[in-house]
Amino acid sequence: MSADRRVLVTGGAGFVGRQTLAPLVARGFEVHATGRRPQPGDLPDVPIVWHEADLLDDAARRRLLAEVEPSHLLHGAWHLESGKGTASPLNVDWIAASLYLARSFEGGGGRRFVGVGSCFEYEHGVQRVLTETSPRRPSTVYGQAKLACYEGLDALSRATGLSMAWARLFYLYGPHEDRLRLVGDITSSVLEGREVATQDGMARRDYMYVEDAGAALAALVDSEVSGPVNVSTGEAPTVRSLVEAVGRAAGDETLIKFGARQTPANDPPEIRADVTRLRAEVGWFDLTPTEKGIARTVDWWRTQVVGATG
Amino acid sequence: MSADRRVLVTGGAGFVGRQTLAPLVARGFEVHATGRRPQPGDLPDVPIVWHEADLLDDAARRRLLAEVEPSHLLHGAWHLESGKGTASPLNVDWIAASLYLARSFEGGGGRRFVGVGSCFEYEHGVQRVLTETSPRRPSTVYGQAKLACYEGLDALSRATGLSMAWARLFYLYGPHEDRLRLVGDITSSVLEGREVATQDGMARRDYMYVEDAGAALAALVDSEVSGPVNVSTGEAPTVRSLVEAVGRAAGDETLIKFGARQTPANDPPEIRADVTRLRAEVGWFDLTPTEKGIARTVDWWRTQVVGATG
Repeated sequence: MSADRRVLVTGGAGFVGRQTLAPLVARGFEVHATGRRPQPGDLPDVPIVWHEADLLDDAARRRLLAEVEPSHLLHGAWHLESGKGTASPLNVDWIAASLYLARSFEGGGGRRFVGVGSCFEYEHGVQRVLTETSPRRPSTVYGQAKLACYEGLDALSRATGLSMAWARLFYLYGPHEDRLRLVGDITSSVLEGREVATQDGMARRDYMYVEDAGAALAALVDSEVSGPVNVSTGEAPTVRSLVEAVGRAAGDETLIKFGARQTPANDPPEIRADVTRLRAEVGWFDLTPTEKGIARTVDWWRTQVVGATG
Repeated sequence: MSADRRVLVTGGAGFVGRQTLAPLVARGFEVHATGRRPQPGDLPDVPIVWHEADLLDDAARRRLLAEVEPSHLLHGAWHLESGKGTASPLNVDWIAASLYLARSFEGGGGRRFVGVGSCFEYEHGVQRVLTETSPRRPSTVYGQAKLACYEGLDALSRATGLSMAWARLFYLYGPHEDRLRLVGDITSSVLEGREVATQDGMARRDYMYVEDAGAALAALVDSEVSGPVNVSTGEAPTVRSLVEAVGRAAGDETLIKFGARQTPANDPPEIRADVTRLRAEVGWFDLTPTEKGIARTVDWWRTQVVGATG
């Protein structure tokens, strides 16, 4: 017998997924989370039930759903090889696994499914501010796979009446980021006292602090809003201003060599979310100020980088 | 060891799939075909190898590919409940199964994959002539699922270099059609001597004789053209003119009651394919004249309808 408010979070140890756990608990959900490995020791200290399962394995996926019987499912899992994920054929396996997951969830009495999409589903470089109805023209395998997954889930929702929302995340930074990504790269380098090459940083990007993304996803799970919803800040400072703030917080701005990496010829000048749906329909507003988000990010990296706090 | 020209046709007993077998044999392919049931007795009389398999079953799908080791795959299967297929959640299972099929095919050394899509992926009612770049805005679960499948296959092609084309079929008629569809309904009714209610028939639709569709798909398999390709005639007579021709061929036009069914309020006035890619890139031209296609269709229905030839 499934409970009324029992949520299963896939990718529950991931960069974003782990940040949804505390907000979901705070909203009164019984929270189950799953990942490919045993429960990590560094998850937020809130009461959850952990399930180790490989969602690409059909039998494991079915077993997990039968065991948990969730009423809500927040599907954050989309595992790719670090550093080469956006072009990997594994993206295609995740489309199929995600659709089967949603089908089994719905068939087992699940009520609401929230998937995690990406601003890379949209066409970039034409519109500077992207709304949920902006043209979709993904330039990467990853973006195209997310778009295909959304279309399949939307078809399922139309066919069965399943309540379904699709969160399109933009750019993120925060604790537990991959070291190969922008803020992780800059922070770890500066803390280690190494010079780090970056682009001139004049492009404007909508960067969200990852704890805010987690809280916004929890709010979306706890709503009845359906279809695509941009989950970001609605602001787009220059990447340079963000990176400079990281440098200051990490203690040495001068290690960051702006312009030492070439900016790609057709780099879009601005990628910013229209967050009208998130604010007006989901009712989510609560943004962490950038300086504070950066400070927490740097603090976390200090615990990761040998000698940084010495 | 996979052969150079060994094609596996999924949905090989289906309305369109069965019509691809003879043209593929004629092009020098070693033809394997698969369906959920034992080989039907009424397939075209050409040398093929039949494999009974349920493609929604993961293990069966893998076994089939391991057994056949095809170099080419023409994926016609997309089984739905007769009469209510366009809204069924089974459409979503077929997205996932199709993507896994293509992944295993590519992983096993398969070279070229041709999927079967639909004009119902496009937005209808705005552009009268649909090109492969026309806006996609499916109004049915079926159309949306086909679109999701195409996006996933295109992502796979980009990730792996797999040669992939996606045939968008429009309207079809011919032998072995479902009795619930337009030409099947009219023909069987008239041959049985029953009145049949239909719309006024003033809408224009791009109807292709199904043997031509089979030949065009075989040509597409045997080409290197990639991406979406409209497979239809490029002409759009009124539906009334087609139905009248059926009535004449079946022996009693007066049984057809035009206008006895209401035309839906927002029925698009015309749905026609731009077939430039099919003609210029695939090099396929060979259309059966409508009167001849209708005559063959009616002849086939005579073998199905009790008492029609009596």
